[in-house]
Amino acid sequence: MFKFEIVHKSKKSNARVGKIYTPHGVIDTPNFVAVGTNGSIKAIDSKMVESLNLQLMFCNTYHLLLQPGSDVIKKAGGIHKFINRNMPIITDSGGFQVFSLAYGGVANELKSKGTKKSDGSVLKITDDGVTFRSYRDGSKMLLTPEISVQAQKDIGADIIIPFDELPPYHMSFKDLKISLDRTHSWEKRSLDYHLKNRNNQAMYAVVHGGISKELREKSAKYLSSLDFDGYAIGGSVGKNLIEMIEMLKFTMNNIPQDKPNHLLGIGDIKSLDLSIPEGIDTFDSSYPTKAARHGTLLCKNKNIKITKSINIYNNSPIDKSCTCYTCKNYSLSYLCHLFKAKELSAYTLSSIHNLHFMINYMSEIREKILNDEI
Amino acid sequence: MFKFEIVHKSKKSNARVGKIYTPHGVIDTPNFVAVGTNGSIKAIDSKMVESLNLQLMFCNTYHLLLQPGSDVIKKAGGIHKFINRNMPIITDSGGFQVFSLAYGGVANELKSKGTKKSDGSVLKITDDGVTFRSYRDGSKMLLTPEISVQAQKDIGADIIIPFDELPPYHMSFKDLKISLDRTHSWEKRSLDYHLKNRNNQAMYAVVHGGISKELREKSAKYLSSLDFDGYAIGGSVGKNLIEMIEMLKFTMNNIPQDKPNHLLGIGDIKSLDLSIPEGIDTFDSSYPTKAARHGTLLCKNKNIKITKSINIYNNSPIDKSCTCYTCKNYSLSYLCHLFKAKELSAYTLSSIHNLHFMINYMSEIREKILNDEI
Repeated sequence: MFKFEIVHKSKKSNARVGKIYTPHGVIDTPNFVAVGTNGSIKAIDSKMVESLNLQLMFCNTYHLLLQPGSDVIKKAGGIHKFINRNMPIITDSGGFQVFSLAYGGVANELKSKGTKKSDGSVLKITDDGVTFRSYRDGSKMLLTPEISVQAQKDIGADIIIPFDELPPYHMSFKDLKISLDRTHSWEKRSLDYHLKNRNNQAMYAVVHGGISKELREKSAKYLSSLDFDGYAIGGSVGKNLIEMIEMLKFTMNNIPQDKPNHLLGIGDIKSLDLSIPEGIDTFDSSYPTKAARHGTLLCKNKNIKITKSINIYNNSPIDKSCTCYTCKNYSLSYLCHLFKAKELSAYTLSSIHNLHFMINYMSEIREKILNDEI
Repeated sequence: MFKFEIVHKSKKSNARVGKIYTPHGVIDTPNFVAVGTNGSIKAIDSKMVESLNLQLMFCNTYHLLLQPGSDVIKKAGGIHKFINRNMPIITDSGGFQVFSLAYGGVANELKSKGTKKSDGSVLKITDDGVTFRSYRDGSKMLLTPEISVQAQKDIGADIIIPFDELPPYHMSFKDLKISLDRTHSWEKRSLDYHLKNRNNQAMYAVVHGGISKELREKSAKYLSSLDFDGYAIGGSVGKNLIEMIEMLKFTMNNIPQDKPNHLLGIGDIKSLDLSIPEGIDTFDSSYPTKAARHGTLLCKNKNIKITKSINIYNNSPIDKSCTCYTCKNYSLSYLCHLFKAKELSAYTLSSIHNLHFMINYMSEIREKILNDEI
């Protein structure tokens, strides 16, 4: 059964160390949640991911719906059996992808660099749901709160997310308000549908309201009044770190402190360092694994760009103090060569290192909070 | 030190079970040699390859010369340290690639489907060596017997190969004869250079002569008179299996039986089954790993084309009796999904299975020879 326990509250900040209990084990918080969009952390197989002790894995309902389809996963006995992972999994609702793919890239849009123009894949938005075209085969699909939650029941993750609308950064206050009302109605319908058959799953609300404090407060208060198991913070929280932290601070004051929270789509070290003192429990991001595949290896001091020629004669590991599989077995020289020769192992070995780095980093963060150093 | 021991000669055929001792361990024969062109079996890292008990790995000097360069490998302490493999490695001379890349694909040319026309990358062939353009950056490079062997000394594999010319299938008898004389002179120079500094390496001759029995006999006899540690069979041995086996039978009668032999570039099951009774000890081929990446999974009865829709609801492993990492952990359904979603793990998991299959297959073959069943 799902349960959240606060182990320690820092005397120095709002940071806290906690434990989220799920049917597939414990998640120590604060923690990093790696993204395995298609039910696979890119370039690392499930058993290796488990051996890295990644306690929570994020899968995308939108992608899984299109390939292989939630019926396939259901028939396999659920996502844990399907991908052979015996540790916690969270899925999103699909709403985020439907809108963000249409707006041409999530990151750009949320950071206000987008164009707001849809690519036409979202065909119709009504109060009922969204009709869109599959990015895979162009077929027409409908996503409603009930369809999304049912898909997430079929997939069977430990934590699921209600269906929401992703408003673009450049939306007017008036439109943002309309979007928020619709999101609230969709989240309520998602929760109602979920509560009819909990299926041993927890559901986190998604607090919206974009960059308006008024709407963020409204959203936090409304969703806090409903029977959610946790609170995710979604949508655009600002176009830079300062704006983001200010909005987080404000939002955190308006959600229940005794429930776990999650910051959606954030996972770079700077953001983590600044968000954890505000009391954020979990973060998901594809950044560490994506960076790995592009040859950026995370290090405590300075990240290493592995394809730089300087690495080719360096027979040391990425980080001499790192205990990961890659650092224990391979040199910078060999990794540089694998990248230059475009060998697939390059992506696996660099992803293992970056994921280990993030997991280890969060473990150290928890230690520091326990010592009231953060 | 290098040593070959015949453990058992079959009473039923010329098949034999043997042991090749090298500075990095024993190779049980007959055995399959996987190809790791760039010092990496594609999609599987060195430690995983070792855990599969792949006893001999084939690396390509031509590719390693161009990237990362033999100096890099030498400075890393040799290929074993560079790629972190503590088991035997064999390198070729580079000659094969220089010519085969020029003739537009090895397989086509050797099976007489090529055009014989060079793509212009081979700039000049003289008795001294070959001048060619790098496929990586177009730079002009010279390969001679001495340069090739020195590169192979720097790389430091357990078994190395003398520099040879790869005559195209469609060559006239007259030209084939000229080519063979040049190859013999190059192999002799390679051996002489090698013997000045054995460096704890063994050198296998490459028997040429194309599809001419007269020239095959001449080549086998000449090379047998020199102090090589083993005999590889190279060049085109025919355009189909029947021609190949006839030529193998003929060639095998003309090379020393007390030394190990190797059939270059052959690794499909049918060819193995037919060649082993002729006394072939080792075979190298990129087929099993290439097939894996293209979604063909090797099975005892019928290979599985994993992307076929029939697999998506099949929660069984590739082969219920298979003990490989992939079969122990993942279903056909998940593998099919990983391939369809183009996830990199698909290539790793399928390559692991196919490599395990080949290694296991050869182990069973050795058992059968020991029982005089082959």
